[in-house]
Amino acid sequence: MFVYADNAATTKMRPSALECYVNTAKSFYGNASSLHGEGQRAKELLTDSREKIASALNCSAREIIFTSGGSEADNQAIYSAATLGKRKGKTKIVSTAIEHHAVLHALDKLKRDGFEIELLPVDERGIVSVADANNAITPDTCLVSVMLANNEIGTLQPVAEIGAICKERGVLFHTDAVQAVGHIPVDVKQLGCDYLALSAHKFGGPKGTGALFVRTGAPLSPIIEGGAQERGKRAGTEDLPAVAAMAAALTEAVATMNEATQKTLALREKLIQGLQKIPHSSLNGDREKRLAGNVSFCFEGVEGEALLLYLDDFGVCASSGSACTSGSLDPSHVLLAIGRKHEVAHGSLRLTLNENNTEAEIDYLIKTVSEVVEKVRSMSCLWRDLTQGKRKFIFE
Amino acid sequence: MFVYADNAATTKMRPSALECYVNTAKSFYGNASSLHGEGQRAKELLTDSREKIASALNCSAREIIFTSGGSEADNQAIYSAATLGKRKGKTKIVSTAIEHHAVLHALDKLKRDGFEIELLPVDERGIVSVADANNAITPDTCLVSVMLANNEIGTLQPVAEIGAICKERGVLFHTDAVQAVGHIPVDVKQLGCDYLALSAHKFGGPKGTGALFVRTGAPLSPIIEGGAQERGKRAGTEDLPAVAAMAAALTEAVATMNEATQKTLALREKLIQGLQKIPHSSLNGDREKRLAGNVSFCFEGVEGEALLLYLDDFGVCASSGSACTSGSLDPSHVLLAIGRKHEVAHGSLRLTLNENNTEAEIDYLIKTVSEVVEKVRSMSCLWRDLTQGKRKFIFE
Repeated sequence: MFVYADNAATTKMRPSALECYVNTAKSFYGNASSLHGEGQRAKELLTDSREKIASALNCSAREIIFTSGGSEADNQAIYSAATLGKRKGKTKIVSTAIEHHAVLHALDKLKRDGFEIELLPVDERGIVSVADANNAITPDTCLVSVMLANNEIGTLQPVAEIGAICKERGVLFHTDAVQAVGHIPVDVKQLGCDYLALSAHKFGGPKGTGALFVRTGAPLSPIIEGGAQERGKRAGTEDLPAVAAMAAALTEAVATMNEATQKTLALREKLIQGLQKIPHSSLNGDREKRLAGNVSFCFEGVEGEALLLYLDDFGVCASSGSACTSGSLDPSHVLLAIGRKHEVAHGSLRLTLNENNTEAEIDYLIKTVSEVVEKVRSMSCLWRDLTQGKRKFIFE
Repeated sequence: MFVYADNAATTKMRPSALECYVNTAKSFYGNASSLHGEGQRAKELLTDSREKIASALNCSAREIIFTSGGSEADNQAIYSAATLGKRKGKTKIVSTAIEHHAVLHALDKLKRDGFEIELLPVDERGIVSVADANNAITPDTCLVSVMLANNEIGTLQPVAEIGAICKERGVLFHTDAVQAVGHIPVDVKQLGCDYLALSAHKFGGPKGTGALFVRTGAPLSPIIEGGAQERGKRAGTEDLPAVAAMAAALTEAVATMNEATQKTLALREKLIQGLQKIPHSSLNGDREKRLAGNVSFCFEGVEGEALLLYLDDFGVCASSGSACTSGSLDPSHVLLAIGRKHEVAHGSLRLTLNENNTEAEIDYLIKTVSEVVEKVRSMSCLWRDLTQGKRKFIFE
């Protein structure tokens, strides 16, 4: 059996989105900045796509700029706020310890440029405290950045509450909503954010395309300089086939969200209950406040990478943390932030589902993961030490 | 009749490239950074695509990084060299007055950051002088950036000669080859460049994707921070369908280049000869050292924008300058650089052909442009002044 359970890393394009890409590439191939008819037809479709994205987020089309993906969108939001902050002498930025690297590494860069970066801790469920965020804001804070849903453990953050505080305190607020858009209702007004980043390939759209919501009045400076596209804020010929396909994917994702969430939730619950029966295992993240598709576990006495490779032999596509950090031997910064010890964090497994997974696949996942964990443990020195009492179990 | 003659703005995707996009999106949808089989299959295709691009440019695959397009690639090359330059106290950059805005606006940004930018002039044919480039290099020069082929007037620059000088003088050398790659033979070793930027949608590949050649040893710093993709130099999930389609398009473009060039050249010559019969007209750029598909004219007593709109009524997609500067009322910086006066530069028309255009289309273009120029002139005050002797003609 083949089971794709890595939908947080990337999704397969929705057939409607791929069809839209093809039709656009064939019939709307003009440059959207050209004055002639082909260009104007392209521009109209660009406008139409922008309106669809804006409608899904409850903002105006003028507040959407298209980017090459979530990382660029996150970077641009952060650098824009930082540029204004620096000009005003406000060089503190507040964020969290569990952000995606597209946020954390942009903040690292600003730190090297003299910014003060405060990363808020999260509790053992992986949720940041609203009071902590409020306390961290000082008069020299130019930006708060808190993700809407975590990419590894799926926890949903109290973004609307933090947004309200930022508004009250007069601080710009960015949220990385890459894992959330298309999966949970996202309303930028309700969230109170000035910036929101999204990525198409996380909800069945094409890779290499994303968008940044920028509230009217919030500062925006370009990362990529050149032509006057995106009102001078993002140079480069518009990738219309991808943008139109992203709009089609998001429209479909929003229209089918209730049904998809119900189906995915049922699968997730079955999977969590099945995997909880594995001895010395523990679910990562909050039991309730999590994405419908996210299942993240730590298993004691297991190397996550060995787990993945054996699972792959059985046709299961899974992940240990985020795909973006693969190749690194460091344990996940998210799992460390929720208090997992190094050796436990190394034994992590992320299975991310969507409505295209089936009950039969879940049965297979439970059986296969259980067997593979047992197999990997049978070869593990750490497991032997644990079972022989030389080390103490943490879970159970 | 419908004639698409704006291939320098963007091309229609080659059927082979679009088919590759679709197949990749359907069958290689895994995240190329994932450890599981789907991810590894994606990674292999990414490597294969990188090798194809490298082979087309005569470099090693490790010297290619994928970007969201030509503008990002140009920006990254320039900022990388500038970052190292600043560290070494070398803050002069030499470029030309006719570069694309992706280069010029990046240089503007560096100028605001304290860099000295010298833009070399071009002669009336639109070609930069090798001696000027040599003279402009000083001990504090960190980068020379000269485009391979101009996007407006199609002139080919003496890049290999300038590359040799840069090597001798120990200065990094970047060339914006966005208009050249896939159209003329491009060999990074022969050009002697440290950086070369290309864009897929200029040779029948998808929009929103491009690449930067970076010679081994040349400095490279990321613009977009986040995951460890592209060896930590360009974050963001790899856009594999687009990258594979770009590789397919470039492979086909290189394989069919001789034939395509011969066909396009014949069409271009016929068109130039036809348009030269229009009174008081003048070809922009060099008669020989130009891209096979580029035809650029100035017509006295004509507003370029009016020309474009009437041509559009007759089904002709053309451009006045580059698509990226549309919306601006300033005359083209390229036409001013070759010495065209403001009022003449405003009367410019760019027709960019490829091998998919036909002889019948060229006949139609000659007839239609001739008629439309006459029509626009009949309504033009400037033309009346010229014919009544109140102003002097420049051409003829």
